[in-house]
Amino acid sequence: MTFKITPWEVTGKVDYDKLIKEFGLQPLQNLPKQFNNCSLFRRKIVFAHRDFKRISEAIENKKPFAMMTGLMPSGKFHFGHKMVADQIIFYQSLGAKIYLAVADLEAYNSRNPDMKELRKTAIKEYLINYLALGLKLKNCEFYFQSHRSKDGVKSNAYYSLANMLARHATFNEFKAIYGEITPGKMSSGLLQAADMLHAQLPEFEGKSLPVVVPVGVDQDPHLRLARDISQRIKVFKFIQLSSTYHRFIPGLKSGKMSSSDPTSYIALTDNPEETAKKIRKYAFSGGQPTLEEHRKKGGNPEIDVSFQMLKYGLEPDDKKLEQIKEEYESGKMLSGELKEILIEKMNQFLKEHNKQKIKANKVVEKLESSGEI
Amino acid sequence: MTFKITPWEVTGKVDYDKLIKEFGLQPLQNLPKQFNNCSLFRRKIVFAHRDFKRISEAIENKKPFAMMTGLMPSGKFHFGHKMVADQIIFYQSLGAKIYLAVADLEAYNSRNPDMKELRKTAIKEYLINYLALGLKLKNCEFYFQSHRSKDGVKSNAYYSLANMLARHATFNEFKAIYGEITPGKMSSGLLQAADMLHAQLPEFEGKSLPVVVPVGVDQDPHLRLARDISQRIKVFKFIQLSSTYHRFIPGLKSGKMSSSDPTSYIALTDNPEETAKKIRKYAFSGGQPTLEEHRKKGGNPEIDVSFQMLKYGLEPDDKKLEQIKEEYESGKMLSGELKEILIEKMNQFLKEHNKQKIKANKVVEKLESSGEI
Repeated sequence: MTFKITPWEVTGKVDYDKLIKEFGLQPLQNLPKQFNNCSLFRRKIVFAHRDFKRISEAIENKKPFAMMTGLMPSGKFHFGHKMVADQIIFYQSLGAKIYLAVADLEAYNSRNPDMKELRKTAIKEYLINYLALGLKLKNCEFYFQSHRSKDGVKSNAYYSLANMLARHATFNEFKAIYGEITPGKMSSGLLQAADMLHAQLPEFEGKSLPVVVPVGVDQDPHLRLARDISQRIKVFKFIQLSSTYHRFIPGLKSGKMSSSDPTSYIALTDNPEETAKKIRKYAFSGGQPTLEEHRKKGGNPEIDVSFQMLKYGLEPDDKKLEQIKEEYESGKMLSGELKEILIEKMNQFLKEHNKQKIKANKVVEKLESSGEI
Repeated sequence: MTFKITPWEVTGKVDYDKLIKEFGLQPLQNLPKQFNNCSLFRRKIVFAHRDFKRISEAIENKKPFAMMTGLMPSGKFHFGHKMVADQIIFYQSLGAKIYLAVADLEAYNSRNPDMKELRKTAIKEYLINYLALGLKLKNCEFYFQSHRSKDGVKSNAYYSLANMLARHATFNEFKAIYGEITPGKMSSGLLQAADMLHAQLPEFEGKSLPVVVPVGVDQDPHLRLARDISQRIKVFKFIQLSSTYHRFIPGLKSGKMSSSDPTSYIALTDNPEETAKKIRKYAFSGGQPTLEEHRKKGGNPEIDVSFQMLKYGLEPDDKKLEQIKEEYESGKMLSGELKEILIEKMNQFLKEHNKQKIKANKVVEKLESSGEI
């Protein structure tokens, strides 16, 4: 079975062990005990890393560290985004300073040139959901690439860094990441490296510090570029970036979750009826073709999207999840029954989330009217 | 006779008429009467343009317009730089808002990665000389590419523009300008286009307005790129850039004036003895090999560097210049005598300039201590 992973394409069934070897990653293990509180780590959904030791050490020694990630403001906020949001919020609970970049200039250069629409999507779809999921604005820098800061000194430092990094990169490195390269992609790649590195500038955290960037494994080429050029620039002494890699969350119909296909995901704005309908109709099942066969052979939770969605966070209780797994594998539980468990869990989550969104909405309105974002 | 002009190379004797045709420039003529006050225009040293009509109209109708130019902070401030400075100051006297960019990020990416040294050179070598030559800080934005503004809103707008322009350029366009292209050159090219265009953003002059960029004819490819992409970006409505083209000021020994060869130029910091020595020893002469021959055939002012330096500004009086020309062409004036005229004019200028520099130095010290630059 073959598979292909680039920042632009994920095809085939992903062999994560092989990826670890091919990309030169390390399996994620021996984490500080706090990581047991997060099912994404406990269940090895976040499965590999580069240089994570300095993050572990910072946590254990209560030293400052930061977490950086970016969001591309397009489409609906769905469960793929939630998995990243859960990591952000978990790191924030561990004391990390959060850097959260809205990649609007990257979006302008690669997809959508409507900056106003990008801004609206970032705030109304993304920021509100992050806040509703538990992100705190304290100890968090939420920013747009196009508007890094209202403080000119900070802005200058961020953008100058992006420009200075250009000296230390080659075209071949960009080609390795992007394949066909354009000025827009190159500009985006440099800005993205600055997103990852600028926390360490004197104008931001005031000193070099460990920064972890949690990504899907397809994004590793971006990390490699930022890591490589960060060590070539001599004007700044950057501590090498740390990164973690999470598994892909499967699309509802198995395969890829795609923002342009609403039947491939559950959005956090879907209502209970839509949700139930989508899951019953589209959720890819690991069950057997006939009832008889299913009772005999049992279902396969590894490929069953409903089970995977429970595993990716909707069932936080390991014992309950294990019980579902056993019942499903034994044939005792049918695919339809598994789907109903997911529907219940999902709607329970969405109901609570919608409540939180009302509060989040008020926070955002305040931020907007005070001009803070 | 062949010649070659690129932003990186000027070789051979330049045929300016041919250049006008090849580059698609327009000869500079029918200027507003004020331009008679500036010998660079009167003597056709500034000889060609693109879209200068809207600048003429702005001047005649007393409408706002801007002039933008950049400086590369390297080496000594010499008479090549003075020619640009004279144009800046002339435009300022006509009411232009002046945008003066220190291309320190470009220098970082192409030459010298010592940002502190670049800053020091820009201020001590360039800004002080500009001020001593008559530049007023009122109605002038003197800025570093790395520190566009202390006001975050302005900074964001400038740097975002540079990044957004990337979408609208192709690699082939950069190759046409730079030949061998690197990420650093591309980054510099985009920033340079933003330098030329950002005056028209809402955050700066508040509206689209005519902007003239005076350059040496070798810099036209940069203008072409900025002009082309400015009309492709739809988020902003840029009035097309205007540009003027000046002749190359010859090096002291004829050929190129090179910052890395102090015998190829007179710096504005050279003292009277050095100046006299350099001119006597190195200034390329249009005279004949023997006294007898010179008296008979006369000298050639077109290739005589001493005469050219008088023409480029040191002798502002057209009648006196014409008289020197006639005497030299007739053989009445010897090369040595012409050199002595230049030495006298030069040292007269340098003496006055040094006085002005003491004042300028105080202004700069004030700006630095108040943190304004």
